[in-house]
Amino acid sequence: MKLTGKNISISSRAKIGKNVQFGENVVVYDNVEIGDSAIICNDCVIGEPLASYYDDPEYQNPLTIIGRNSLVRSHAIIYAGCMIGDEFSTGHRVTIRENTIIGKNCSLGTLTDIQNNVRIGDYCRLHSNVHISAQCSLGNYVFMYPFSVMTNDPFPPSETIIGSHIGNYTQIAVHVVILPGIHIGEHCLIGASSVVTKKIPDYSLATGNPAIILRDVRKIRALGKGHPYPWPQRFSRGMPWDKIGYDSWVEAGQEAKVE
Amino acid sequence: MKLTGKNISISSRAKIGKNVQFGENVVVYDNVEIGDSAIICNDCVIGEPLASYYDDPEYQNPLTIIGRNSLVRSHAIIYAGCMIGDEFSTGHRVTIRENTIIGKNCSLGTLTDIQNNVRIGDYCRLHSNVHISAQCSLGNYVFMYPFSVMTNDPFPPSETIIGSHIGNYTQIAVHVVILPGIHIGEHCLIGASSVVTKKIPDYSLATGNPAIILRDVRKIRALGKGHPYPWPQRFSRGMPWDKIGYDSWVEAGQEAKVE
Amino acid sequence: MKLTGKNISISSRAKIGKNVQFGENVVVYDNVEIGDSAIICNDCVIGEPLASYYDDPEYQNPLTIIGRNSLVRSHAIIYAGCMIGDEFSTGHRVTIRENTIIGKNCSLGTLTDIQNNVRIGDYCRLHSNVHISAQCSLGNYVFMYPFSVMTNDPFPPSETIIGSHIGNYTQIAVHVVILPGIHIGEHCLIGASSVVTKKIPDYSLATGNPAIILRDVRKIRALGKGHPYPWPQRFSRGMPWDKIGYDSWVEAGQEAKVE
Repeated sequence: MKLTGKNISISSRAKIGKNVQFGENVVVYDNVEIGDSAIICNDCVIGEPLASYYDDPEYQNPLTIIGRNSLVRSHAIIYAGCMIGDEFSTGHRVTIRENTIIGKNCSLGTLTDIQNNVRIGDYCRLHSNVHISAQCSLGNYVFMYPFSVMTNDPFPPSETIIGSHIGNYTQIAVHVVILPGIHIGEHCLIGASSVVTKKIPDYSLATGNPAIILRDVRKIRALGKGHPYPWPQRFSRGMPWDKIGYDSWVEAGQEAKVE
Repeated sequence: MKLTGKNISISSRAKIGKNVQFGENVVVYDNVEIGDSAIICNDCVIGEPLASYYDDPEYQNPLTIIGRNSLVRSHAIIYAGCMIGDEFSTGHRVTIRENTIIGKNCSLGTLTDIQNNVRIGDYCRLHSNVHISAQCSLGNYVFMYPFSVMTNDPFPPSETIIGSHIGNYTQIAVHVVILPGIHIGEHCLIGASSVVTKKIPDYSLATGNPAIILRDVRKIRALGKGHPYPWPQRFSRGMPWDKIGYDSWVEAGQEAKVE
Repeated sequence: MKLTGKNISISSRAKIGKNVQFGENVVVYDNVEIGDSAIICNDCVIGEPLASYYDDPEYQNPLTIIGRNSLVRSHAIIYAGCMIGDEFSTGHRVTIRENTIIGKNCSLGTLTDIQNNVRIGDYCRLHSNVHISAQCSLGNYVFMYPFSVMTNDPFPPSETIIGSHIGNYTQIAVHVVILPGIHIGEHCLIGASSVVTKKIPDYSLATGNPAIILRDVRKIRALGKGHPYPWPQRFSRGMPWDKIGYDSWVEAGQEAKVE
């Protein structure tokens, strides 16, 4: 987090935007592009080369993009081939493997570990220590909490993996496991420590091992506070409906624009 | 762990006690106080500035305290505003967010991740990879094991969080989840992978998802070894009753003094 | 991963093989031996001294061995007294505590945390964020997936721990907990989020909390693909039967040789 830029190592084949700040010991490899006003904190590695780097003398690092106004906290390692949108932020010691695509306004918590070829939409928030296996996908406005996992291998170990998917606006509580190839719909809430073993329709509250659908999330009542779900109607910090409210934002057709 | 003090960066507005040792690349920010004879190993960051540091030109780092005789192993990141007692020790890559208060003689294992505004009493031991959400609290002599989590948000995402609490002497096994606002009593044992969904009275053995109270811990029998709980009667390493035994220590009124 | 060898610190009492490459800031302590053609990436620590290093002026670092052709990715911390075989590879931020013995051709994923006095056989693959407690043991060809844990303390906290064991060829899915002293047989498949509370015989599919044996793994059917287990008959990447097939390899008596 000391933004002195001491002992940094920036490839001459990287493109660094305006007003980018670097912490100490940052390493930026070939073919990385960092957007304007991004902050890359101490000891981060951007564009970490793929495994073939170690033995292929002709190795070329694939294009890696970090969006504008991003804040990458210390010790993140972002592999080559990742494309990450604007306003990205992370905690510490995040790892993102190669060829993963992340939309705009996303944040990843401390220790979160994203494998290769993952797709994450816009405005997603993954808290500390989330693990996403290769080829999984998330829509927009998805929140995942610590130690939740998306998996991809129905018969481990195998060469034929099949990523799981989480739909827009869905909340995945702590310690949830989503089994390989499983599709969770939009606006769902999956309870703590659940194991999701089959397709979950939109607006479901599901919990347990295996996860059972308990009810429609719109029927959940919070003592003295009415209906907490769908959550965008009561929570807007950092979300695109922050100023106008979710319902107005949807009516104005903004939702369609983002997605 | 190389205590050469090479390439360290200590703010002129930090107070460093006598005989403090620093590893390489350590960073100590403004308004940090480190007690006598502490060891701060390689690549640690003490007093990491809060988010407003990045855009507030008037930013002032709040007071941060690390107690005497502490051993902070490599790559710990301790945010500004934390107050940590004497004889503190950590594994590697620990993260402690801002304004967290930790008592004396505590230890945190490798990768453990403590969020902001947490309160931890004295003589607590959190093993590897424990996650404590913001505003949770622990009493004294609490042990937590890997991948256990204290949560704080009953209807995620929300702005109104409510921390969970663990009472004195309680043992939280691996992979336990404590739901938001839940209060666990003293001298409890919560079994592996349990999800604690309601208040747990003192001396309970509870296990399962949701956790069910099975019996009084004092009725647990270990084959050929009698009653293992309450554990302080048979385990004293590093505890204040180490020399005299737990019962004598309680009789001497020492327990009341510590708490 | 920048293999410039800048700012490295290699003890004069370490033995470094031929063609070994070092990343930046690597530290190698006394009595470490690194085999030929190994690559030790940025910020790794090899031979991290034990706790007595901090207060014993006569401290001697025990022998630590890293095998030939190993690739240790950035920020690994490997304690003194570890013996690790050839062709070892790791992800980032791996921690291995003292006196752990690991066979040949093993790999450990990012954030994996191996405690002291663990024994791991040959050709094991531990993915991201696996936690192995002290004195646990694994056979050969064992795969473990993220957030799985082997435990060792039946009545925490205690001074008398008893490691759990996983037999050859067994697959441990995500978030599995193996209770202290439990023995899992060969060729088993333990389902996601299971808690293994009793001995599991060879070739068992077990799942749940507590884990129940559902059937013989050889009776599992994959839609349109026949029987996926035993897995060595269909998966050979990086395994010693890669060129000749598992059945031929067993018939040729190679299995006996390796084990």
